[in-house]
Amino acid sequence: MAPKTYDSSLPPIPSTDFDPGLPQSHSSHNSEPDCPFCHISAVYPPYNPADPPPSTSPVLNPELTSPQPSTFIILSTPHLVAFLDIMPLSIGHILLCPRPHRPKLTDVSPAESAELGRYLRILSAAVVRATGVGDWNVVQNNGAAAAQVVPHMHFHVIPRPELRDKRSERFTATMFGRGQRDDLDEEEAAGLAERVRRAVAEVVREDEGKPKL
Amino acid sequence: MAPKTYDSSLPPIPSTDFDPGLPQSHSSHNSEPDCPFCHISAVYPPYNPADPPPSTSPVLNPELTSPQPSTFIILSTPHLVAFLDIMPLSIGHILLCPRPHRPKLTDVSPAESAELGRYLRILSAAVVRATGVGDWNVVQNNGAAAAQVVPHMHFHVIPRPELRDKRSERFTATMFGRGQRDDLDEEEAAGLAERVRRAVAEVVREDEGKPKL
Repeated sequence: MAPKTYDSSLPPIPSTDFDPGLPQSHSSHNSEPDCPFCHISAVYPPYNPADPPPSTSPVLNPELTSPQPSTFIILSTPHLVAFLDIMPLSIGHILLCPRPHRPKLTDVSPAESAELGRYLRILSAAVVRATGVGDWNVVQNNGAAAAQVVPHMHFHVIPRPELRDKRSERFTATMFGRGQRDDLDEEEAAGLAERVRRAVAEVVREDEGKPKL
Repeated sequence: MAPKTYDSSLPPIPSTDFDPGLPQSHSSHNSEPDCPFCHISAVYPPYNPADPPPSTSPVLNPELTSPQPSTFIILSTPHLVAFLDIMPLSIGHILLCPRPHRPKLTDVSPAESAELGRYLRILSAAVVRATGVGDWNVVQNNGAAAAQVVPHMHFHVIPRPELRDKRSERFTATMFGRGQRDDLDEEEAAGLAERVRRAVAEVVREDEGKPKL
């Protein structure tokens, strides 16, 4: 029996073409009143990732989430938001989540899941460029037994600098929510977020020049 | 200043339409001679995930990778393969990787990254259905400092049954490659892989009925 084959074409790469005429979609999604990630989604409007606003722009003001902790936005599209983790395991630890409230990975739409995959690669490349750290983990926890804390699904992108043994053990132990994590240094965070946003823009623009398969 | 907005449309959902007239693409990709995942990619041809072959089909024969360990295929598309981890952290622990040799997540193409994201959701839903375990981790390690062992990028999907404290600690310690992991029970594995493949087919067919956003 000849092995079966099927359509080998991949879906087209989404364009980042900027269309200021479209309505903002970020306020029309379903949202949970007490969810910190829904709060972030509600107050930070989408921008073109290939051309991010300057860090002084009011649309990136870290204090828009006040009195909740400051938010350092890395990416804000109509469907996704990414920002620095407020208790980073390493410098450059970021979170990527869908803008609407989706408790687990199985709650996102098929189109959102593809968009998450696309930006996981882009954000990984950007974090490597911005931190100079070439190794990293991607982690996504679903449910209390899997150490999910905020019930709005999110991917962690966590740079892994070479650490001496003791720090490395602590790193692994804290990866799933146990042990000590440091608070984000807000002054460092502003500069870091700016560097990562610029690196995201570079990667997105480079991708636009690539063949579409 | 009015906040900027941009094109809010998501890319179209790829179709799983089966086209037996297209050539097999799985043998034309770049491949590393000593890479176990390239070996798996080379010997298992793509099939339509919405209509998987029966478990008795020669295209799913677990011994095609002999003398390397048996392979229990969960998914085989022109661009991706997924299979049971040979040293599972829990029942239903699977790996998803691009068919071509890509060392890290940043080495996949934009289109492959979207396809990985799309199937991460589908495989997660399928593993939940096949195992009855509703919590799980998704983990993807890049580089030696991040505990990557096989240098062909792969996502882990790892069910997290509720465990008593001691087993839970061992689970977390072994998540990044330390501590004991059990070998796959090959008899159980065959039945499990069959159940997951059928669940993947269910999810893919259900997705085809969903609005395309």
